[in-house]
Amino acid sequence: MTTARRDTYTPETLLSVAVRVFNERGYDGTSMEHLSKAAGISKSSIYHHVAGKEELLRRAVSRALDGLFAVLDEPDAGRGRAVDRIEYVTRRTVEVLIAELPYVTLLLRVRGNTSTERWAMERRREFDHRVAELLKAAAAEGDLRADVDSRLATRLLFGMINSLVEWYRPQQATAEERDELAGTVVRLAFDGLRTAR
Amino acid sequence: MTTARRDTYTPETLLSVAVRVFNERGYDGTSMEHLSKAAGISKSSIYHHVAGKEELLRRAVSRALDGLFAVLDEPDAGRGRAVDRIEYVTRRTVEVLIAELPYVTLLLRVRGNTSTERWAMERRREFDHRVAELLKAAAAEGDLRADVDSRLATRLLFGMINSLVEWYRPQQATAEERDELAGTVVRLAFDGLRTAR
Repeated sequence: MTTARRDTYTPETLLSVAVRVFNERGYDGTSMEHLSKAAGISKSSIYHHVAGKEELLRRAVSRALDGLFAVLDEPDAGRGRAVDRIEYVTRRTVEVLIAELPYVTLLLRVRGNTSTERWAMERRREFDHRVAELLKAAAAEGDLRADVDSRLATRLLFGMINSLVEWYRPQQATAEERDELAGTVVRLAFDGLRTAR
Repeated sequence: MTTARRDTYTPETLLSVAVRVFNERGYDGTSMEHLSKAAGISKSSIYHHVAGKEELLRRAVSRALDGLFAVLDEPDAGRGRAVDRIEYVTRRTVEVLIAELPYVTLLLRVRGNTSTERWAMERRREFDHRVAELLKAAAAEGDLRADVDSRLATRLLFGMINSLVEWYRPQQATAEERDELAGTVVRLAFDGLRTAR
């Protein structure tokens, strides 16, 4: 005779299980049944914590978005020359992405079939837009190359940063690599790979 | 009374329909029925051209891979300083990605459930490895910054380049943007966004 595992979940730990399953199966491909099996508790136990899978999605992408938007409110993101602010924001964005990897991964994969997904995409665009504004300000101050369009630079910068969710595996990285990653992204993006000519 | 559309497909035009459907639904989510509906011809007509959907996948990713590997055999990829060769390869990789956008998109999304998918992933890793070798050679010649690890630089470079399949829409780009894109990627990656300090 088997008995269901006792529900020792908090909304927080249940969320981390849900995010793992969403990332593995895709949000659309995940049923409450899948979540129940992965968590080892009954569906009714899950409904004790949340209204359904969309609430879990909302909480998960909110955690990623809150982390990213908080960067823009940090003191160093708001003072000094725009180029220093954008370098700071780039570095911290990479750090948040690493610290909240499964949550940011889910955020970046969201495609917009539900209102929660559309809301998440809208907030993500807002974040990108804030970064693009900073890049524009830095260009206006003469600190960024005039031959690179700000909008295109924003896309390429986020292309590089966001690619981390595809290949970065914290458990495979050495402590040195972890510390170096954000710095390397900033150096590549702002100073380039070439030694000075 | 409806009659099936006459099969005027060549293997080439059938391939372009299949690649569109694979990119829309995912390769796993595409059945011969979906391909038959999208092409407007019967399944048996499709079987007249190809053995099945895996052959279409193989042809599609081969087209992307052939385009990418051909870059490495171009004269400018093989002569001169390594840093100039890697810049050339970067520029041409972006151009091939744009020219073969749906095919490269499919290649980058392949996840390895069939032998064809695993073969495509292996070939893609081989291409990345060839580029990493070039970056290492350029670093050894003193032309790349010593404080950026070659393997990490390769990942970030491809992260930036490959992100194009997520956001680049040729029909929305102006002719100038199209011409400038490869140059912008090269400038950002090798010279950075900052004006010289």
